[in-house]
Amino acid sequence: MGLQNFRTLATFGFRFTPLVVVELASNVKEETITWLLSRIRDQQQNGVRRLLSKGLLVQIFPLHEKEELKRLSFSWYKKVKLSLQPLDDIRHYYGEGQALYFGFLEYFTFALVPMALIGVPYYLFDWEDYDKYVVFAVFNLIWCTVILELWKRFSASLAYRWGTLSRKKAFEEPRPGFHGVLGFNPVTGREEPVYPTAKRHLRIYLVSLPFVLLCLYLSLYVMMIYFQMEGWALSVHDEDPTFWTGILLFIPSIIYAVVIEIMNLIYRYAAEFLTEWENHRLESSYQNHLVLKVLVFNFFNCFASLFYIAFVMQDMVLLRQSLATLLITSQILNQFMEAFLPYWLQRRRNKKMIRKVQKKRTLEDKELPLVEQVRLEADMSTYLGTFDDYLELFLLFGYVSLFSCVYPLAAVLVVLNNITEVYSDAFKMCQVFKRPFSDPAANIGVWQLAFEAMSVIAVVTNCALIGMSPQVKAYFPESETQLILWTVAIEHGLLAFKFILTFLIPDIPKHIQIKLSRLEFESLEALKKKVRSDCLVFV
Amino acid sequence: MGLQNFRTLATFGFRFTPLVVVELASNVKEETITWLLSRIRDQQQNGVRRLLSKGLLVQIFPLHEKEELKRLSFSWYKKVKLSLQPLDDIRHYYGEGQALYFGFLEYFTFALVPMALIGVPYYLFDWEDYDKYVVFAVFNLIWCTVILELWKRFSASLAYRWGTLSRKKAFEEPRPGFHGVLGFNPVTGREEPVYPTAKRHLRIYLVSLPFVLLCLYLSLYVMMIYFQMEGWALSVHDEDPTFWTGILLFIPSIIYAVVIEIMNLIYRYAAEFLTEWENHRLESSYQNHLVLKVLVFNFFNCFASLFYIAFVMQDMVLLRQSLATLLITSQILNQFMEAFLPYWLQRRRNKKMIRKVQKKRTLEDKELPLVEQVRLEADMSTYLGTFDDYLELFLLFGYVSLFSCVYPLAAVLVVLNNITEVYSDAFKMCQVFKRPFSDPAANIGVWQLAFEAMSVIAVVTNCALIGMSPQVKAYFPESETQLILWTVAIEHGLLAFKFILTFLIPDIPKHIQIKLSRLEFESLEALKKKVRSDCLVFV
Repeated sequence: MGLQNFRTLATFGFRFTPLVVVELASNVKEETITWLLSRIRDQQQNGVRRLLSKGLLVQIFPLHEKEELKRLSFSWYKKVKLSLQPLDDIRHYYGEGQALYFGFLEYFTFALVPMALIGVPYYLFDWEDYDKYVVFAVFNLIWCTVILELWKRFSASLAYRWGTLSRKKAFEEPRPGFHGVLGFNPVTGREEPVYPTAKRHLRIYLVSLPFVLLCLYLSLYVMMIYFQMEGWALSVHDEDPTFWTGILLFIPSIIYAVVIEIMNLIYRYAAEFLTEWENHRLESSYQNHLVLKVLVFNFFNCFASLFYIAFVMQDMVLLRQSLATLLITSQILNQFMEAFLPYWLQRRRNKKMIRKVQKKRTLEDKELPLVEQVRLEADMSTYLGTFDDYLELFLLFGYVSLFSCVYPLAAVLVVLNNITEVYSDAFKMCQVFKRPFSDPAANIGVWQLAFEAMSVIAVVTNCALIGMSPQVKAYFPESETQLILWTVAIEHGLLAFKFILTFLIPDIPKHIQIKLSRLEFESLEALKKKVRSDCLVFV
Repeated sequence: MGLQNFRTLATFGFRFTPLVVVELASNVKEETITWLLSRIRDQQQNGVRRLLSKGLLVQIFPLHEKEELKRLSFSWYKKVKLSLQPLDDIRHYYGEGQALYFGFLEYFTFALVPMALIGVPYYLFDWEDYDKYVVFAVFNLIWCTVILELWKRFSASLAYRWGTLSRKKAFEEPRPGFHGVLGFNPVTGREEPVYPTAKRHLRIYLVSLPFVLLCLYLSLYVMMIYFQMEGWALSVHDEDPTFWTGILLFIPSIIYAVVIEIMNLIYRYAAEFLTEWENHRLESSYQNHLVLKVLVFNFFNCFASLFYIAFVMQDMVLLRQSLATLLITSQILNQFMEAFLPYWLQRRRNKKMIRKVQKKRTLEDKELPLVEQVRLEADMSTYLGTFDDYLELFLLFGYVSLFSCVYPLAAVLVVLNNITEVYSDAFKMCQVFKRPFSDPAANIGVWQLAFEAMSVIAVVTNCALIGMSPQVKAYFPESETQLILWTVAIEHGLLAFKFILTFLIPDIPKHIQIKLSRLEFESLEALKKKVRSDCLVFV
């Protein structure tokens, strides 16, 4: 790989990224290089993605700015501090999408603190008295509704500060992978590939949907194997209980947790392949279908066993044990896979590279020259977006909002996980990955919807758990029917109240609404003035 | 009242209404008349409303255009026909708000036809076999979700054709009745009355809310009296059943229906007074609060007794009888109050006026001169908007979607009612009322939400009715708990499906979406071109 293939384009025109490296394919001729570079510069993101898919462009990435990155990483995760994350700096270096993710992570952690504070004494003093979870379930139910509404307002404040709140969506070009017979775009009138919607629907409903259902069935099958293992471990422990059989009790859950993670990972690749094959024209539609596929499976895979234990087996001791094992195992696995492993790989690669460089010429100053920096960063992993990070938060939110009333320590665990997550994600962004291009964003998009759907499920689940608790059952000693009817009535009332609350709490804080309407009013006035002066000219 | 107070302004600048009559107060001096008229002409609607509230202006209304009105009323309701309403002509004469109401009325009627077609054989052949309503309830449940989604698409088509679909909301000025201490508007920076939100909230939560609750309690009280009357009539009939006691059985329902209508009417005035007193700054906020107050009470007042009979008394025979009486009585009352009474009053007044005029000079030609037309129309009632019309449709929609499975003829009755409603409303608009100013509208606004809320309640109600039916009960002979759990599970599934459906069905038909994005694309291209040419000029 010759260095001549790296072209450094200064002031490339992308947001916040003045120094962009372009790696061209080695078969690109010298004559076409200038033309290619100018095309990349003009057409920006979309043209670039088409060149990438044609193979003319190997990769394109902005260079890290050493000085700024050092400052950012110091204020972000290097100093031990009690302050918040430098969201504005993150936004300035990585763009709004990244900054909103870290803002959400921080917000979510703070939102969990009251729950963790209630959870600790619950855990310490009422450990075996796990029936007293009604208060906690009620708290859960209000909590998950309120925090999501408040996040919308907080997110609107952030987006307003960054100027992306009332941003109109850019005109979307087709995705680079999109293919079809040549036809005319009815909107632009330009010639471009056209793929019939009916065909795509056939692919979605006849292939993707059955595949997802098959995966869900497989997941159920694995769950049943887990319950058999669980039963076997219990029988061994009951026959001759020793210290080792006590530990054996946890083994099935741990194995199941590891298997769940592996299944999620494999399914993830399959979902990406299928969604690509569905041949969506727009990136947004591709993303929506991918998110939907992955969310449904991950939700099912992670929570099916817990729902089964809670509502079919009605075994609260097993539920608590299973929840704890799942949560802790998946957290450990995630931290390992997400931060430690890439870091370790990256370090090994870096060391090799630096040694190779140092062999050629022994550097005295610690600052690597630009060429070496380009080489080093070109080998770094590419950051694939916030998808997996949000997915992890979504599952954690599920563990807490659905079942934390039976295992109040869940909130504490998630808070601890989130704090290390902030550090490991920050570290990952600064040290492990290439600098990503920054996309403007006004909110967390489809994830807001996903979290809200989860909070609706949480209301239903918590109501059912409350209805099943012995304390509540004691109020209806003679009639189970009465108990169920009351639970259902209250649940419907709560759901209605939740929807009314969503309407009542404005999504944008009042002071920002006033600023926005002032802006609109002023532009309207300016327009009026312009129209008047134009008329004067023509009269 | 001298004729000099009527000023006729030609080409007044309002939409679709070239001839507007202004009636000034008799104490306005000759010198200020010209100034006032020019102010009215310039400031349009809002300035006008302020002058009205100051009392300088008695009334302002557009004149009917005799020729156009004759054509419109002929094609609308005079000829016996099997064609649709001339929505485009209605829109051209009355504006989009009116046209959308009539469009919705027509759409709703057509949507009811399949239900009516299923209802008739049900009624004719299974009259006493009222247990077989499961199929009908399932149909109901799908029907009410689908028609509302399709209406959104139809309404978008209409609004696109009329050019109001992507219309931005105009900048809202304060309502004329709004008062407060002088302060500065944070948006415009202008001096205007300011009223603290906290004070308004106090009024809403400490006065309006308790008042509404009190009214709901009163309505419950009246309902209980009705049930006592019902019990009394039943006991009389059981003691000595004759033809007359058979009729007596229907009397309590009829009295109750009349009382409900009267209570609705009185409450309506109280709600308007209270909402006015809450001192909302914007007309939209006033309207929302008024609609909410009126909807909650009317829903409760009309349906509480039916819910009580269906789910507490579980008496399906009484439910059917009560529903039929309520529906028929309220329809008769409404048609009378809404169309016949105003028409009759108007005719009496017109005759008097014409006789008076004819006394002065015997007219040979049938065409009244402009002056007489102005006098006649100035005395006509003022049309108060589509509120009451939508409210009536909302309640009819409720009767059909909630309980029509026990009384399948309901849909037939509502279809018949709607057909006469089209004619009486059309007649009322053309003959009874002054011509209203036309407001642009893109959809039916808050009513879409109200109808959707009703359709959610309909899903819950129909599921409960299905769960209570003897056929379904027969599947769970040993356990009532199982039955309830299954009903609740299926109901939750249906609600989830309903929300997913709302997401899946696009609100705007595809061909209109394409046209809209083409428009956007073209304006973007034009902007690009303009920016380029501007640059050329300056370079």
